[in-house]
Amino acid sequence: MALTLELLASRLGCEFDGDADCLISGVATLEDAAVGELSFLASSKYRARLAATKASAVIVAERDRDACPVNALIARDPYLTYARATQLLYPDEYHAGGVHPDAVIDDAAQIDVTAWVDAHCVIGPGVIVGARAQIGAGCVLERDVVIGRESRLMSNVTIHGRVRLGERCVIQPGAVIGSDGFGYANERGKWVKIPQVGGVTLGDDVEVGANTTIDRGALSDTIVANGVKLDNQIQIAHNVHIGEHTAIAGCTGIAGSTHIGKHCAIGGHVGIVGHLSIADGVQISAKTFVSQSIHEAGFYSSGAPLEPNARWRKNFVRMKQLDEMARRIKTLEKMVRKLSNDV
Amino acid sequence: MALTLELLASRLGCEFDGDADCLISGVATLEDAAVGELSFLASSKYRARLAATKASAVIVAERDRDACPVNALIARDPYLTYARATQLLYPDEYHAGGVHPDAVIDDAAQIDVTAWVDAHCVIGPGVIVGARAQIGAGCVLERDVVIGRESRLMSNVTIHGRVRLGERCVIQPGAVIGSDGFGYANERGKWVKIPQVGGVTLGDDVEVGANTTIDRGALSDTIVANGVKLDNQIQIAHNVHIGEHTAIAGCTGIAGSTHIGKHCAIGGHVGIVGHLSIADGVQISAKTFVSQSIHEAGFYSSGAPLEPNARWRKNFVRMKQLDEMARRIKTLEKMVRKLSNDV
Amino acid sequence: MALTLELLASRLGCEFDGDADCLISGVATLEDAAVGELSFLASSKYRARLAATKASAVIVAERDRDACPVNALIARDPYLTYARATQLLYPDEYHAGGVHPDAVIDDAAQIDVTAWVDAHCVIGPGVIVGARAQIGAGCVLERDVVIGRESRLMSNVTIHGRVRLGERCVIQPGAVIGSDGFGYANERGKWVKIPQVGGVTLGDDVEVGANTTIDRGALSDTIVANGVKLDNQIQIAHNVHIGEHTAIAGCTGIAGSTHIGKHCAIGGHVGIVGHLSIADGVQISAKTFVSQSIHEAGFYSSGAPLEPNARWRKNFVRMKQLDEMARRIKTLEKMVRKLSNDV
Repeated sequence: MALTLELLASRLGCEFDGDADCLISGVATLEDAAVGELSFLASSKYRARLAATKASAVIVAERDRDACPVNALIARDPYLTYARATQLLYPDEYHAGGVHPDAVIDDAAQIDVTAWVDAHCVIGPGVIVGARAQIGAGCVLERDVVIGRESRLMSNVTIHGRVRLGERCVIQPGAVIGSDGFGYANERGKWVKIPQVGGVTLGDDVEVGANTTIDRGALSDTIVANGVKLDNQIQIAHNVHIGEHTAIAGCTGIAGSTHIGKHCAIGGHVGIVGHLSIADGVQISAKTFVSQSIHEAGFYSSGAPLEPNARWRKNFVRMKQLDEMARRIKTLEKMVRKLSNDV
Repeated sequence: MALTLELLASRLGCEFDGDADCLISGVATLEDAAVGELSFLASSKYRARLAATKASAVIVAERDRDACPVNALIARDPYLTYARATQLLYPDEYHAGGVHPDAVIDDAAQIDVTAWVDAHCVIGPGVIVGARAQIGAGCVLERDVVIGRESRLMSNVTIHGRVRLGERCVIQPGAVIGSDGFGYANERGKWVKIPQVGGVTLGDDVEVGANTTIDRGALSDTIVANGVKLDNQIQIAHNVHIGEHTAIAGCTGIAGSTHIGKHCAIGGHVGIVGHLSIADGVQISAKTFVSQSIHEAGFYSSGAPLEPNARWRKNFVRMKQLDEMARRIKTLEKMVRKLSNDV
Repeated sequence: MALTLELLASRLGCEFDGDADCLISGVATLEDAAVGELSFLASSKYRARLAATKASAVIVAERDRDACPVNALIARDPYLTYARATQLLYPDEYHAGGVHPDAVIDDAAQIDVTAWVDAHCVIGPGVIVGARAQIGAGCVLERDVVIGRESRLMSNVTIHGRVRLGERCVIQPGAVIGSDGFGYANERGKWVKIPQVGGVTLGDDVEVGANTTIDRGALSDTIVANGVKLDNQIQIAHNVHIGEHTAIAGCTGIAGSTHIGKHCAIGGHVGIVGHLSIADGVQISAKTFVSQSIHEAGFYSSGAPLEPNARWRKNFVRMKQLDEMARRIKTLEKMVRKLSNDV
């Protein structure tokens, strides 16, 4: 899609400086941008980079307007405006409504006439696919799954029974939603499976990354609220609840029945144990181990530092002696206090 | 499925108190249960919750019988009985034997007449699918795979050559069994692939979680013994051996040739390095790093605590100084001992 | 495939001792090998094991020749020669060129006549599949994907738009290449998606493990250079660059825009945060947390040691007191120094 600078500015609701008719057809970094491309300056720190850009236009904040040698779009938050501009210049491709002849659709499924179902999908009884939804190649939607309007499933997504997606969700390839929760009772050393009879409810505007897994609830539903963004290879166990507009980075795992608040930002490779409660507005840095509830908004971390292996080995051993070291310090303090009095 | 209280008690081998004809058709928590639903009290700690339940019946221990205001099933282990009751009330759906016309089956595969193969499966030469096995939509079973009787593969499962599943296994969607082990020799800085010619053997009653991966052995087989339960997104490398009735939580990775004992319980996000031996009956808490063999049953852990980021940064830096701190304590002890003698 | 010892030696470019006509048809460990099988002794440490082997031949170093009681292949690096021998004895199966009638190929895709496309693949417009490439069952290749000659995609692989694979790549089942990077701008607490318009470039001889995910770039490409080997369940975020002949073990995650050097060896379950730079020749041990750039080749680690849970709990608490402990040591040192002067 190509738009003039003037039209782009009008759609983005921002001012522009320069040639109103300049045609913009793509986005690129300041370094890589060529004629016809739009770039952006996210932080004034890098304003010196503006001088050399070959972009046809750059999104800048008011304060950097003077340093922009080419056409400019003036934005309060250039990074946000870049997001919006990219959405305009690269609109999602929507297939017209229809079902590929090589898809297998149960007679008792309801596919909206404006929805698209690609080749080799398998759609079970009771499934409802809403208006303009897009179901990619090789997806399997089992019995009673509901897909809200304009939601997009990429290829090879698997959704098992009693899962309900809201509107405008995006599910990346290989994601699995509604797999059995990991629930067993133990009988004399052997595991007895507890059938998982809950479902999964995803709100509107939820994004689920590639090969991410979300288990169905044991009794009630696993819940992922409106606007939640999940990166790739995240594991969400049964009966987890993730609050609105929380974002979670790749490889993080959340154990059963944990409740995550709204507007949280959780880094990659974080492990959160089960049955915890994490407050709204909590940020957790990458690779943190969360073994207790967090009751207040704030930024939390755990983990040990990177070191050259030889040095790490020495410190690693000492970690086993910490309690002993603390006791020795206490003893020393007593002795020194006594000595100070004595002297 | 709906059963009377009397019939349910009889099938579960337990006593009941109350209306023998009360019809039970589902399970729910004490809080959520409605008429017609069964609940359970797993621990006497929560017996106060019994008072308000709207469940038609509750599974309780003998000692909590008096606190149950509705029909009761009396069980030695209410949680285990709840598992069994749920199995009775929500029996697995078995498709009658047959092969979907949109599955592709090699002429040299043997599918039992009572087994079901769903749409868009691809089944290679030499594959054997046992009685009443259920192969979900989009599964690919390559050359010579053997699926034991009553095993169930959910959708989009991939099983590569020389893999043998026992009876009554359950494989969740997206799991991959029999992928190549990560084996290379190094020749002047370049990696030379070692073809992986072993297979994978899964015992009976093994469960494999969604998007979990189990590599085939380099020479001999990777082995997952009877009754092992693997959660989602677990990585089992080549030639790992997992002993009977061990359960492993999500996102855990086990490197090549490590041998895990029987009846172990391993938490989520645990990393176990290769060529180790873990004894029977070992429990490992979530996110633990296992870099050495464990020779005795017991409960093991590693990892650093969650802290507010600002405090963590201070302690994080100190972890690099642990060895130095330990030496300084030792020096102090010598000096103080000397001073004590001198004074 | 079966070869005589003489022919095998000649193909491997090494000397042999013993029966030139001895027929070798497989490989196995020293312990398991039977008649007709070849084994290897990777390290002289284990030379005592040679005595009992039933292998028909063993690959040994010159220095272990005397201890080998059966036919011997003499190699400078027996492990490397075992890799090569296994390649000769177990050649990859190549299907003859052709497209399965149950694959769905867009008219605007170009499939080389010598390439093979298996059942239930879906191949979009603009896709190019090179000579002798092998596309396994259930793979989805979206618009404009390029697969280099002799590359092999196992089953159920998903490759989205603007991804280019070099020659002789191997992609294990369930891998996803070209999923959207995790990019959002924040507008008053809500996440605004940034369409990801870059692609992914894989060099020649790249291997991608089962259920590994590689995101497409935000603007420019994510790059995985020649000879890189990625194990299972690795997550590569947008705009990561991985240098030539680097190998990465399972479950490792690399956040956005991080640049990894050449010839690195990165262990399993490692987490590397975004926008870092890792030098050539860096080794990182399993489960390490990399939160800063590494400027020099070498071996790096982080992490806390495994302990019995009761002991760990004590040391775990002390980790929060490290900074305080360090200050107390400093205070003690001052006091003791003063006391020493006073006494």
